[in-house]
Amino acid sequence: MKLYSYFRSSASFRVRIALALKGLSYDYVPVHLIKEGGQQFSPEYKALNPASLVPALQEDEGSVLTQSLAIVEYLEETRPEPSLFPRDAAGRARVRALALSIACEIHPLNNLRVLGYLTKTLGVSEEQKNAWYRHWVETGLATVEAMLSGDARTGTFCHGEVPTLADVVLVPQIFNAQRFNCRLDHVPTIMRIHEHCLTVPAFAKSVPAEQPDAE
Amino acid sequence: MKLYSYFRSSASFRVRIALALKGLSYDYVPVHLIKEGGQQFSPEYKALNPASLVPALQEDEGSVLTQSLAIVEYLEETRPEPSLFPRDAAGRARVRALALSIACEIHPLNNLRVLGYLTKTLGVSEEQKNAWYRHWVETGLATVEAMLSGDARTGTFCHGEVPTLADVVLVPQIFNAQRFNCRLDHVPTIMRIHEHCLTVPAFAKSVPAEQPDAE
Repeated sequence: MKLYSYFRSSASFRVRIALALKGLSYDYVPVHLIKEGGQQFSPEYKALNPASLVPALQEDEGSVLTQSLAIVEYLEETRPEPSLFPRDAAGRARVRALALSIACEIHPLNNLRVLGYLTKTLGVSEEQKNAWYRHWVETGLATVEAMLSGDARTGTFCHGEVPTLADVVLVPQIFNAQRFNCRLDHVPTIMRIHEHCLTVPAFAKSVPAEQPDAE
Repeated sequence: MKLYSYFRSSASFRVRIALALKGLSYDYVPVHLIKEGGQQFSPEYKALNPASLVPALQEDEGSVLTQSLAIVEYLEETRPEPSLFPRDAAGRARVRALALSIACEIHPLNNLRVLGYLTKTLGVSEEQKNAWYRHWVETGLATVEAMLSGDARTGTFCHGEVPTLADVVLVPQIFNAQRFNCRLDHVPTIMRIHEHCLTVPAFAKSVPAEQPDAE
């Protein structure tokens, strides 16, 4: 398999963690989101992924998968062990809801093109842009904290004692939050889980600084 | 089952379509997102869903499901027929990627609280707010159009000849696009599929105007 990835992309980071948790090896193909006006806009990459987003995962037979959460579900279906989902339908729904609470409610508001629109098209200041970033991270994580702290199914990880899709999505979001100096003292359950995840080799080797294209 | 819904919420609309496609009946509980400062912020609703978002689906035994895509996956697992997913893993990955291309890349940028932040906190004009809305819808749908028009698996519906999760997410997004007068002449495949979906009773009865809380 080939993973088209950018070291700092948190969607790429999610897939790196999932691949590592499942013990799958892959070729890392860097796609630099800033250099050359963004390599994701090259005709070669657009042919692979019309959305011009990373990550994309290519199987050896050629098929291409996009959208990080769809890729994790695909890996789960095609390489089921170890599973990244609970055994019961209600548990799986909870794990997916936690993941989507980050992937739909926090992350999309803070990606590069959105921040670019704010500064370039709407002319907001650097300070206002950073306040926007922190607002969505801090309020969004407060929701996730409530979902975690108010539910007995929360364990060492987001759901019980083994990593799931929820942890796969949570950890990259905390890296982003820390990079932008977001407040995190209001989300102690999240931070406890985050720190525990980083003791797991599959998470530790997937962090941005450990990637071949890290700067 | 009880569905906590707002007639205009496109995330609620997705779940209404999925429930209707599966022939499931439910009690409709309206949650007005604007009246009384937003009924989703009431202590009663927050106890049900700490995210203060609609929809939420409550099973008769009490368990509560949140996040529309997680709810559809849960319905698929607990009430598998008729299926809203293709039989093959690659097909399921494609359908999920189409759904997430709308649910993560378009919809989050245009929901009420984001538009509120733009006007109230950043002080952008009504005209700039509408331009923002249309920008993300029009560019995001162009990506979805490329994913659909460039793939032989696209059929009468987004994927083949039966409705899937991709159609469940697409149709509500087109309703939003039309409400905000977005350009749609650049996405002919999408519009063909959208119009076909609306000939299917499960879609037709799930539209905002048909809901008990419609205004």
